[in-house]
Amino acid sequence: MARLIPVSDPADPRLADYVRLRDMNLRKSLEAEHGLFVAEGEKVIRRAAGAGHPVRSLLMSRRWAEPLADLLDGLDAPVYIAADAVLEAITGFQVHRGALASVERLPLPAVDSVLAGARRVLVLEDLVDHANVGSIYRCAAALGIDAIVLSPRCADPLYRRSVKVSMGAVFAIPYARMANWHDDLVKLRATGFTLLALTPDQAATPMDEAATGDRIALLLGSEGDGLSSHWLDEADEAVCIPMSPDAMSAGVDSLNVTAAAAIACHTLSRMVPA
Amino acid sequence: MARLIPVSDPADPRLADYVRLRDMNLRKSLEAEHGLFVAEGEKVIRRAAGAGHPVRSLLMSRRWAEPLADLLDGLDAPVYIAADAVLEAITGFQVHRGALASVERLPLPAVDSVLAGARRVLVLEDLVDHANVGSIYRCAAALGIDAIVLSPRCADPLYRRSVKVSMGAVFAIPYARMANWHDDLVKLRATGFTLLALTPDQAATPMDEAATGDRIALLLGSEGDGLSSHWLDEADEAVCIPMSPDAMSAGVDSLNVTAAAAIACHTLSRMVPA
Repeated sequence: MARLIPVSDPADPRLADYVRLRDMNLRKSLEAEHGLFVAEGEKVIRRAAGAGHPVRSLLMSRRWAEPLADLLDGLDAPVYIAADAVLEAITGFQVHRGALASVERLPLPAVDSVLAGARRVLVLEDLVDHANVGSIYRCAAALGIDAIVLSPRCADPLYRRSVKVSMGAVFAIPYARMANWHDDLVKLRATGFTLLALTPDQAATPMDEAATGDRIALLLGSEGDGLSSHWLDEADEAVCIPMSPDAMSAGVDSLNVTAAAAIACHTLSRMVPA
Repeated sequence: MARLIPVSDPADPRLADYVRLRDMNLRKSLEAEHGLFVAEGEKVIRRAAGAGHPVRSLLMSRRWAEPLADLLDGLDAPVYIAADAVLEAITGFQVHRGALASVERLPLPAVDSVLAGARRVLVLEDLVDHANVGSIYRCAAALGIDAIVLSPRCADPLYRRSVKVSMGAVFAIPYARMANWHDDLVKLRATGFTLLALTPDQAATPMDEAATGDRIALLLGSEGDGLSSHWLDEADEAVCIPMSPDAMSAGVDSLNVTAAAAIACHTLSRMVPA
């Protein structure tokens, strides 16, 4: 049986993993220092545990203990039970999905190892928005992308909001983080990948007309500035998603990065037969 | 010259259009009663005014009056200037983008009139999330969709959040709202459209293999339940976006509605040569 431990003091040190979940600066340093992340909601907690991440503890309102009973019984972790008002006082927001888990990070694999055998890869340069990162993981997993490589400064896929928006897809798709923004793209190409740089520039090749080999890495740039000129220069070809000339003239001149990524993942999945 | 009117009392009745912008129930009844909507941010305000919507008033911090000066000078509307704390007290949130406008709604055109001449159309059934509606408008406009038709209960594209997420695309694409959920889809087909129902069901035809005529209407269902069985039955063909078998078995079994819509709009734009 799981150990259900009622708590009522928001300052209880056993709940330190869960404090101020919307305070991004605090969370970044706290989670880095302790090597943890927070999974929110039954589905995401089950996927995190299922992916082999050790669970440090759980925190939830009592009504969630029953639907999670089978999971809790299999974990050697304390389950803290709190009233909704206490949950809100600890976390700083209304915990609509009821259950939270503090989960241990695992060492990320090396870039080489996630690329072994992969044929369709996304490479994300410096995305800053956690929801966008989560959304891209969800698309990539659903559409058969084999792996994701992150630039050194790209937002953390295990930040609570990323994990939540991804619906747990961050546990379903192998990923790694580059150590060196300047050199690691060159290495990636040296392993046999054609590098396609996605750009809103309509003078680029429509993505589904690009000439590629058997292994394709699609480079996606940050929300504001897009890809750096260094990455654009390193790519084999710049590709675009063709937009409506009418829209361009009406000033609706871009897709947001998650819409572009969805179309790009779908196109990738059609370019290389599975 | 624009009339800049300093205000400091959050209860000032001249600011009633802007109260509690995050209180959805209040806003729905307030905006319906007064036939207005709120545009947020310079780009969106310019697009709303450019699309012919009369501006009732504007509310902003003083630093926004200068970059908007050319627009303000052309409007016969009071410009209320408030400190950030007053703006927050009125609206209930931090107005990051600085400027708000209360704008008059215009009568929506009839369904027949937005369909005249259109070849690629989206039909949205009962989407509940305003951000999703805005995101779909942005994609549809950028990818050359000619018109959007909304079911009677679909969320309002002129709700503040929809307008903002759409980046003003709600003013760039003609749309209308059905009066009758049960009958109006039949009428739509009678005007010569092939109705394609987008479903996550992987037994459906991959969307880019669907047989269609020159006029295509793509039906998109609500976030939770997808399309109603009535609309699925009325469609000429159910179509899907093919997903990775690996992902399906890993439980990553769906795209969110905005990702699906982005891929579907892109596919539509490739199915019928412009």
